[in-house]
Amino acid sequence: MKQHELEFWFGFASPYAYVSAMRIEEWVSAVGITVRWMPFLLDPVFKAQGWETSPFNLYPMKGRYMWRDVERLCSRGRLPFVQPEKFPQNSLLATRLAVAGGEQEWLIAFCKRLLHEEFGRGKDISGRPAIESILGEFADDASLWLERAQSPETKALLHERGAEAKRKHIFGSPSFITSDDELFWGDDRLEQAIEWILKRR
Amino acid sequence: MKQHELEFWFGFASPYAYVSAMRIEEWVSAVGITVRWMPFLLDPVFKAQGWETSPFNLYPMKGRYMWRDVERLCSRGRLPFVQPEKFPQNSLLATRLAVAGGEQEWLIAFCKRLLHEEFGRGKDISGRPAIESILGEFADDASLWLERAQSPETKALLHERGAEAKRKHIFGSPSFITSDDELFWGDDRLEQAIEWILKRR
Repeated sequence: MKQHELEFWFGFASPYAYVSAMRIEEWVSAVGITVRWMPFLLDPVFKAQGWETSPFNLYPMKGRYMWRDVERLCSRGRLPFVQPEKFPQNSLLATRLAVAGGEQEWLIAFCKRLLHEEFGRGKDISGRPAIESILGEFADDASLWLERAQSPETKALLHERGAEAKRKHIFGSPSFITSDDELFWGDDRLEQAIEWILKRR
Repeated sequence: MKQHELEFWFGFASPYAYVSAMRIEEWVSAVGITVRWMPFLLDPVFKAQGWETSPFNLYPMKGRYMWRDVERLCSRGRLPFVQPEKFPQNSLLATRLAVAGGEQEWLIAFCKRLLHEEFGRGKDISGRPAIESILGEFADDASLWLERAQSPETKALLHERGAEAKRKHIFGSPSFITSDDELFWGDDRLEQAIEWILKRR
């Protein structure tokens, strides 16, 4: 597999992943950095810290602040933002599909569109109809991919993705990892991850 | 008391407060914003979330990342950085002293110097000798201030400072609050707090 200069790790349930997904391409294409999108499940990461749900729900002051912060970030970046009623949303099927998609041409467009539905329009993206409809915009064989998403092979891939996240010390979304294993956490560290790569070229 | 455009809330045990303290003056003076330094104790805030110590100790992956992140931030900002052996340090006396100091001329210089000793040189700043010696550099009557720091009046002031932090929904350090009650959390939000003020002038 081709080595990329930057890995963009994100969970579909993560509001800050939405902000990063909408802006990362412009940034990296401006400086010619190759990025691999690495969707992963946050639940096992949270469980490893002893959290049964998102820390934004466990710590309401932080959660309240987070939504305001995301709203401000979207406003500054001229991104639409609607807080979904349910948070975090179950993103198992979406993540399986995206992991099954590997580096398919539709992958990035699909991920962006899904995050946009969820946080730009406040929609529910947990069910198969919503996901299949979105994928159908970018891939001809959406229902085939949905089948693949639920295959044992994909489940194994997703499991391995989680193991890789753990090996790479990832504890939140979004995270950016350079090819020399430097970890940057949070949408607000994207620029520093890019700076890190440029300085070492 | 004079109304300031920005309040800079910080705990002396907070590595990111060190980074902010070292850079906030240059930023705000460049655009002519008035700032009030608001030292406060983080312990009650953590306890309110159910944490007996810093979340950076409770969640080792986050803690490990935090030290690396602070090291990088210091490197980018050309700030000295030495990770102290003990973390978090007991900052009760330092906070009492800084709260007693109110808006004394020595306050900012003292806070910066203390944070620099702690995170720029990795020194222990929990004891009276270290604190008195630092204050002595900026105030003639250091020992008098140390007495005041331990008076019932100061303890009441510190308690009220904590209550104010709670009213203002502060949950971490550093936090920046504008005079129209907009809360920004984290060193990386300083620029956005300033932008917020400038846009509303």
